[in-house]
Amino acid sequence: MEFSTLRAKGRVYLDHNATAPLAQSVAARVPEWLEQWGNPSSIHQSGRGPKAVLRETRNRMAQMIGAGAPLELIFTSGGTEANNLALKGVFEKARMNERRRILVSSVEHPSVRRTAEYLESRGAEIAIIPVLRSGRIDLDAYERLLDENVALVSVMLANNETGNIFPVKKLAELAHSKGALFHADCVQALGKIPVNLRDLGVDLATFSGHKFYGLKGVGVLYVRRGVNLESLIHGGAQERHRLGGTENTWDIASLGEMCGFQGQIDSRAEELKRLRDHLETRALAEISGVSITGGESERLPNTSSLVIPGVDGETLLMNLDMRGFSVSTGAACSSGSPEPSPVLLAMGLARAEAQTSLRVGLGWENTQAEIDLFVDELILIVERIRSFERPVLGEANV
Amino acid sequence: MEFSTLRAKGRVYLDHNATAPLAQSVAARVPEWLEQWGNPSSIHQSGRGPKAVLRETRNRMAQMIGAGAPLELIFTSGGTEANNLALKGVFEKARMNERRRILVSSVEHPSVRRTAEYLESRGAEIAIIPVLRSGRIDLDAYERLLDENVALVSVMLANNETGNIFPVKKLAELAHSKGALFHADCVQALGKIPVNLRDLGVDLATFSGHKFYGLKGVGVLYVRRGVNLESLIHGGAQERHRLGGTENTWDIASLGEMCGFQGQIDSRAEELKRLRDHLETRALAEISGVSITGGESERLPNTSSLVIPGVDGETLLMNLDMRGFSVSTGAACSSGSPEPSPVLLAMGLARAEAQTSLRVGLGWENTQAEIDLFVDELILIVERIRSFERPVLGEANV
Repeated sequence: MEFSTLRAKGRVYLDHNATAPLAQSVAARVPEWLEQWGNPSSIHQSGRGPKAVLRETRNRMAQMIGAGAPLELIFTSGGTEANNLALKGVFEKARMNERRRILVSSVEHPSVRRTAEYLESRGAEIAIIPVLRSGRIDLDAYERLLDENVALVSVMLANNETGNIFPVKKLAELAHSKGALFHADCVQALGKIPVNLRDLGVDLATFSGHKFYGLKGVGVLYVRRGVNLESLIHGGAQERHRLGGTENTWDIASLGEMCGFQGQIDSRAEELKRLRDHLETRALAEISGVSITGGESERLPNTSSLVIPGVDGETLLMNLDMRGFSVSTGAACSSGSPEPSPVLLAMGLARAEAQTSLRVGLGWENTQAEIDLFVDELILIVERIRSFERPVLGEANV
Repeated sequence: MEFSTLRAKGRVYLDHNATAPLAQSVAARVPEWLEQWGNPSSIHQSGRGPKAVLRETRNRMAQMIGAGAPLELIFTSGGTEANNLALKGVFEKARMNERRRILVSSVEHPSVRRTAEYLESRGAEIAIIPVLRSGRIDLDAYERLLDENVALVSVMLANNETGNIFPVKKLAELAHSKGALFHADCVQALGKIPVNLRDLGVDLATFSGHKFYGLKGVGVLYVRRGVNLESLIHGGAQERHRLGGTENTWDIASLGEMCGFQGQIDSRAEELKRLRDHLETRALAEISGVSITGGESERLPNTSSLVIPGVDGETLLMNLDMRGFSVSTGAACSSGSPEPSPVLLAMGLARAEAQTSLRVGLGWENTQAEIDLFVDELILIVERIRSFERPVLGEANV
């Protein structure tokens, strides 16, 4: 299947971890989905088309991620809601059997981190599994923290800022050995690497449509059959009472459409890795002092988190933006905040290092020519910023 | 502005309280909105268009519903999520100041009713304000239930099954006199009658896009400035930390588009009332035993809840469906459930009456010719069903 997106002409988009441009094939089918405006819960004619869309998407998505059965998938309004449902839904049920502990890694997305903080205020005991500067999770610390009081462990499959991939299969096995449930936020991984829940052996997993070229407004929480979950949004009987509200058929349909690209993920990943490595090789060689955060550990093929000493990340971002390149300094959800990335600080970077960090997230449409244009521009801008910030004193007398 | 929808040719859609067919003018603008696929939180170029869409919709919607300021509006994934946010968000904060009581009417939508039940399991004290068979809320009972322990009162502006309109302005004044907050679910009212929050004087109010010819996947919770609300979905800084998650730009934009039809609401309401009254006049005159639930009280102009003795509602619905008419037996969210409508039972109808109820919800595109076709068909089907259920013994010997 051909692949292209609605990305703007004349710009180079390198922020696919924030959101992906919409696939043309999704945009092309939207008018057809809009015809299915009925309420999927209606039992008359207008409900049947929408209901079929939900069923088909659930089947395709279950097949793509290797779920045991389509009904193990709950459609949510996005990854954030799915992460909230996982943590709150499990904790609400677990506290009845006295397990009050939740373990999360130090580099989770805010939708896991802040939900854990909230649950702490409601009686949960939260413990943080450290992630080392190398990008590896601290397995010894994890094993020390795991005990019979742990209800749930939540560790992402791949980090949104560094791209680091965590050994979820092994972490889940260890959790299960203590009777704890395991949740993996797979939002950043979907579409960038193959994800198979049968291999990973997790109990809950989160996915999002818009990071994989689909429409915004749709996510999925996989909940293994038998896991006891309190509802997050109480209301109608939708999603078997675990998330009420009329389903947004077209957003959901877009996820089903993207399942058609599953067969391309492997080869796309190879090409992404080649481009990303090319970018890093040039940046390391041609810009002094650059380092790659988490670069020595397993990573998503598309992500690069660069520390460029002496160059404020936000200034760099704005200069690149003016020249037609979209990148970011960290998670988009934290954009606009003056604070440096909590993920990078948690990994042990100094504030100054985190503040001079740039995140590049490549996508399926990027080309080597674009990457070269980007690095050329990056070199020029870094030189200019560095020359302002560290004026050559000799010239002041000219 | 011209108005038309994507409704199917050759069918008569009379279930607008379940969902409205999508407006053509919304469908026509979707491709343009899809171009705004960026993440509104991104600070580079691709985030600016989406951010502008959110800002513009917030402004238009605030103007339409008479909010004090656009930032009093929180975009949600729909009415159900907004109702959950209202009740849970207020209760979480209120329990710190010892007010543990929540009053809700007996005819609220499941997203209020079931959320209240959930909060009861978490320490809230729930009391139910009765709604009488006439469609009026029991004001005496309300005043007896109101005291200084009440944190929140939640009564809908208009009921989704009978269309009955409740005196929210007065109910809110009484709540305020005891220091309680007031929430009104305005989902069914929006677009059917003018809604002005300045007049109503409520603290929180819920709206939904798809009941007003917009896209599914978007709702609004109005929260008066100064009301203290715990977040429902923890995550990024979206919606000022009260509801995390990347915003679904196009669904939100559709709500803004529909604000352009505000000027038509008054005259459309008059025409709807004329058609609805015509339908009821004929049904009452031409089908024996029919009664209108809540018909003697103030109602939305488009809604009719008919009791047709001796005719099972679901059988009737399916027969009408086969003949090209979409109606329902109650809330779409409860469809498929064998139980009769909890709303009708709460109003004092017997099970047999609730089971023989039919809900008709008219919309802006229905015509008198359609209504007449519908009543003609209704008469024939009712006659047929009644003849099966009460066979004429004399004919058995022919």
